[in-house]
Amino acid sequence: MIFVLKPGVPQEKIIQFQQMIESWGFKTFLNTGTEHTVVCLIGNTAAIDLDAVVQNNYIVEYGKRVTEPYKAVNRTIHPEDTLVKVNGVTFGEGMFQVIAGPCSVESEEQIIEVARSVKASGATLLRGGAFKPRTSPYAFMGLHEDGLRLLLKAKKETGLPVVTEIMNQTQLSLFEEIDVIQIGARNMQNFDLLRAVGRFNKPVLLKRGLANTLEELLMSAEYILSAGNSQVILCERGIRTFETATRNTLDLSAIPLLKQKSHLPVIVDPSHAAGLRNLVTPLARAAVAAGADGLMIETHNDPSRALCDGAQSLDLEQFSNLMADLKRRIAFEGKKIIYH
Amino acid sequence: MIFVLKPGVPQEKIIQFQQMIESWGFKTFLNTGTEHTVVCLIGNTAAIDLDAVVQNNYIVEYGKRVTEPYKAVNRTIHPEDTLVKVNGVTFGEGMFQVIAGPCSVESEEQIIEVARSVKASGATLLRGGAFKPRTSPYAFMGLHEDGLRLLLKAKKETGLPVVTEIMNQTQLSLFEEIDVIQIGARNMQNFDLLRAVGRFNKPVLLKRGLANTLEELLMSAEYILSAGNSQVILCERGIRTFETATRNTLDLSAIPLLKQKSHLPVIVDPSHAAGLRNLVTPLARAAVAAGADGLMIETHNDPSRALCDGAQSLDLEQFSNLMADLKRRIAFEGKKIIYH
Amino acid sequence: MIFVLKPGVPQEKIIQFQQMIESWGFKTFLNTGTEHTVVCLIGNTAAIDLDAVVQNNYIVEYGKRVTEPYKAVNRTIHPEDTLVKVNGVTFGEGMFQVIAGPCSVESEEQIIEVARSVKASGATLLRGGAFKPRTSPYAFMGLHEDGLRLLLKAKKETGLPVVTEIMNQTQLSLFEEIDVIQIGARNMQNFDLLRAVGRFNKPVLLKRGLANTLEELLMSAEYILSAGNSQVILCERGIRTFETATRNTLDLSAIPLLKQKSHLPVIVDPSHAAGLRNLVTPLARAAVAAGADGLMIETHNDPSRALCDGAQSLDLEQFSNLMADLKRRIAFEGKKIIYH
Amino acid sequence: MIFVLKPGVPQEKIIQFQQMIESWGFKTFLNTGTEHTVVCLIGNTAAIDLDAVVQNNYIVEYGKRVTEPYKAVNRTIHPEDTLVKVNGVTFGEGMFQVIAGPCSVESEEQIIEVARSVKASGATLLRGGAFKPRTSPYAFMGLHEDGLRLLLKAKKETGLPVVTEIMNQTQLSLFEEIDVIQIGARNMQNFDLLRAVGRFNKPVLLKRGLANTLEELLMSAEYILSAGNSQVILCERGIRTFETATRNTLDLSAIPLLKQKSHLPVIVDPSHAAGLRNLVTPLARAAVAAGADGLMIETHNDPSRALCDGAQSLDLEQFSNLMADLKRRIAFEGKKIIYH
Repeated sequence: MIFVLKPGVPQEKIIQFQQMIESWGFKTFLNTGTEHTVVCLIGNTAAIDLDAVVQNNYIVEYGKRVTEPYKAVNRTIHPEDTLVKVNGVTFGEGMFQVIAGPCSVESEEQIIEVARSVKASGATLLRGGAFKPRTSPYAFMGLHEDGLRLLLKAKKETGLPVVTEIMNQTQLSLFEEIDVIQIGARNMQNFDLLRAVGRFNKPVLLKRGLANTLEELLMSAEYILSAGNSQVILCERGIRTFETATRNTLDLSAIPLLKQKSHLPVIVDPSHAAGLRNLVTPLARAAVAAGADGLMIETHNDPSRALCDGAQSLDLEQFSNLMADLKRRIAFEGKKIIYH
Repeated sequence: MIFVLKPGVPQEKIIQFQQMIESWGFKTFLNTGTEHTVVCLIGNTAAIDLDAVVQNNYIVEYGKRVTEPYKAVNRTIHPEDTLVKVNGVTFGEGMFQVIAGPCSVESEEQIIEVARSVKASGATLLRGGAFKPRTSPYAFMGLHEDGLRLLLKAKKETGLPVVTEIMNQTQLSLFEEIDVIQIGARNMQNFDLLRAVGRFNKPVLLKRGLANTLEELLMSAEYILSAGNSQVILCERGIRTFETATRNTLDLSAIPLLKQKSHLPVIVDPSHAAGLRNLVTPLARAAVAAGADGLMIETHNDPSRALCDGAQSLDLEQFSNLMADLKRRIAFEGKKIIYH
Repeated sequence: MIFVLKPGVPQEKIIQFQQMIESWGFKTFLNTGTEHTVVCLIGNTAAIDLDAVVQNNYIVEYGKRVTEPYKAVNRTIHPEDTLVKVNGVTFGEGMFQVIAGPCSVESEEQIIEVARSVKASGATLLRGGAFKPRTSPYAFMGLHEDGLRLLLKAKKETGLPVVTEIMNQTQLSLFEEIDVIQIGARNMQNFDLLRAVGRFNKPVLLKRGLANTLEELLMSAEYILSAGNSQVILCERGIRTFETATRNTLDLSAIPLLKQKSHLPVIVDPSHAAGLRNLVTPLARAAVAAGADGLMIETHNDPSRALCDGAQSLDLEQFSNLMADLKRRIAFEGKKIIYH
Repeated sequence: MIFVLKPGVPQEKIIQFQQMIESWGFKTFLNTGTEHTVVCLIGNTAAIDLDAVVQNNYIVEYGKRVTEPYKAVNRTIHPEDTLVKVNGVTFGEGMFQVIAGPCSVESEEQIIEVARSVKASGATLLRGGAFKPRTSPYAFMGLHEDGLRLLLKAKKETGLPVVTEIMNQTQLSLFEEIDVIQIGARNMQNFDLLRAVGRFNKPVLLKRGLANTLEELLMSAEYILSAGNSQVILCERGIRTFETATRNTLDLSAIPLLKQKSHLPVIVDPSHAAGLRNLVTPLARAAVAAGADGLMIETHNDPSRALCDGAQSLDLEQFSNLMADLKRRIAFEGKKIIYH
């Protein structure tokens, strides 16, 4: 159940209203929009007489029962799109962002070469893994703190905001200068990590787990928003099915469904979904057409020697060709991509 | 293994060559292109000395080992796109076709109203089920022969070629005037039916099974082609996964993959994939962008009263709006859609 | 909705009652048990006043709303187990049956050698494919009518009832002397075939489709029962999942679930499920413990030279060892296996 | 590649041999068995001349190439079963263990009542969640440190060793007195947590992830073993499939496959797999028959009021009945269960 308050209600009246409801035995949290503040109730609200609450509290414009288990991420509560602003770059509301870069940061030369090249081609953010989750304990795990340092160097060189994956909450202090913290597919239900980034004031890129439903993805986003951080970008990256021709099956229905159900921006990672370089372009085009707010594209200066995921990485020229194609498509959709 | 013959080889030389190979214990079949005839060998050809065959038979231009289990549908054997021509409408090679109509033919008024309307909106073929596969023996199964008759009446009225589903090979004689025979998802591995339509000289629309890999879809097409009918259109319509927000998960990677591996045209059915009306438009747009050669869209004059699949059907106005949008996109992709 | 009639109601009273209900616009069918006859209504029965019908018709013992879409197979309607009797062998009610034999009948020597051996080891029915559904049109498809003939010869030699797969309804007349007609996984939703075997008076072994839910399996059985044939054995044989270590994932929950929801016997095919010989024994043991009424085990005299599915076939000695083990387990479960 | 050393080789010779191999650019780790020490090489060992190494190093009995990506958990390297010893209770080698208790510790009365009852029925370990991973941020998350304290109180009262789930590595110090640390399904690929428990000297119960292959489960166990902790128990608990009749699909093939490929004990959790109380008994029986080394059964004193997962919990009497049945089955399999 939610109560949408009238515009301009003073803070102390909101707090009084909240305390009254909590005295009835419910938890509440506030969702503060540009015009309205929404008070969300958590718990079994079946016994509350909604109309009586509206009539007896003049600060309430209207009340609504929210049947979905997610509240803060629900479009019902927050009908307008959330804009996630990252260092001059905006996700949502007619903007389109392209995050490009290698699976992992391998060396200063590599990340700076890639950063310069993808920026020239039109990418608007730089990605690069410093801490890499790997199925095998014997695989390359990334350069760790050195990787973060090199990524920030590439940011300084090019001005591109940077996106990189966190593995657990003890690493948070290392991510102070990172622009977007990525939660990988395997950590989508690492609830302690979700809560920790929810208390950290940074945009979060939340990837869908390999076997997670869209409702579960929204519930994981709810962990972050309900802890106080509403700067969340959702990312579809393929799910596990019986099909073996691709690494995962990209579920593009996720884009319109997530945008109907929630107010958060949605991007797509066709590289991890397909696991095959020659599917990246058609899937990226499809994602743009289906309404995505952005793309994440693995790009490497020398894919055949990449320390991970080379088979799905575009080389710098392929990425440049893809961007030339995507720019026309983004314009066709009436969206904007602003280059640095 | 295949042998591509030189252009202009006389028929009797081809037959002699074929007989020689068959005398070695292999089955063969011919694939006759516009310029070249290809002799395909079936069986374990490891022992054949490919170079010796080429040197000793002057009619052979070159030979090639084909490792995939599908031969006739393989792009290696037939590098140029197959064009499937249906009564003035062509699938493949820069053309785009939209098949629209109701899940099932319900009455003369219904099918003619729908046919006229979708034609006016720009559809290029009419669909409508006469024999309906239903999970429950108590559900509406279609009007059967009457349904076919009404569909042909709608064809006569509008000039639209018609597509309808066959349930088993004993019905083939009823499909003489139907333009495209549809094999439904549940029949994708009904091998006797595949062989029967392979001997029938009519275009076939072959839908991917709910739990079938792309390789299995190509093998089912191989049944039809190897029986003599190369007029096959492949159709992606969603696969079964753990996700319950949509009826099936549309696998758009299928479009580029099938087109890389085979020479057959590929269309997409977003209505059955999603099972939800409000996902049809974004998924149709995505399919166009991913390179599909056409779409199949469930459209009904009164979806709320449809005898089957109402929840996924567009009404006539929604379809008209979709077509207006798709025409711009088809043009953007450099493809043509020619209206009757 | 169903009405359970009192014991001993004369036939003409039943017909009168049925006609009265049909005059209200419902279809009905009868389910005749050992004591009670049950009248099943098909259609939206929400408007019927159940209590009034019971009070006004003295032949009715009680009525019940059946919410599941399956009626005839529903345990609510037919609480006692159905026994499927096959030529002296009974499926259900404390009996346990083992069907053994090769994937396909290959020659007279082969099938007779296998039949004699598996009988000596304790198998109670013989299987062997004559018409083989194969993914590839170039694979061995079985010996067809010759295969059936050889299977019947093996039956004559050993007295074992025989089970073999039908591919389509035009073959039914060839199956007159076959004891159990198998519907394969790929044909589980070949509805015309289901209806045809429903009108044929022979036990049917219905295998679960690779991507079909248990409810869909019950609906397919409903096709057969509602067409008049209640001699149906359900068979779990693995479903398609993301796991690649086995060919399919055997879903043993199917045994208790199917037995809770329906009154039909349930057997398990561990050979096709796993696709690996060395998993057959542990999975067969698990199936016995989970309450299966029987097993289907692929057994070949020379698996390394089998024309299909050799990798999952036991040889004759392995089968003999398995049977020795299973006999102790069947006795432990308090079930009987009677040898010919 | 591995080198199995002769029995009784002195430690300094082993270290010299290891240093020689590491000087060639490989990482190594030792696996010390009861008789033999095995030196495992990590990296691309294609260039090593295996025979030459054996001939030139008299301490080496033989060498072997290990093609699987998992080494320390591989049965090739460690052919005898690993026994995991927990406070007087042993997993593996003919022993059978039953872990019972509630989804979450709710109060002192509850956990002590359950502990006493399941002990009396024959359970050999007590489970109970203190930190609960929940899809919703608004659901009950467990009693945290208080839950651990109550669990240890129940251990003191009954003598049952206790199993409870860890959520992240920062909690490790709280688990000093816990007997078995559980890694839940959602954390199976939380690689930092795996490494941390690998350095902690306590038995670990590693649950298979909902969408993880058996190979991935073994790779996660490899993280723990390669970090120095070989006390790992694997747990199959159902995977995500399209079937909705059960919460997950229990994959019992996992038992024989994991035991063929690795030397670690394997247990089964039928409660979480099915999500339905009335499937627990048949699935538990099947797991025993398929060769499991133990079971984990959710048991609650009042399932209808359980704060989580009540629908799948047995009550105390149901658990007692199940144990009476299982004892006969465990004896039938020739395994022992020793009660405290």
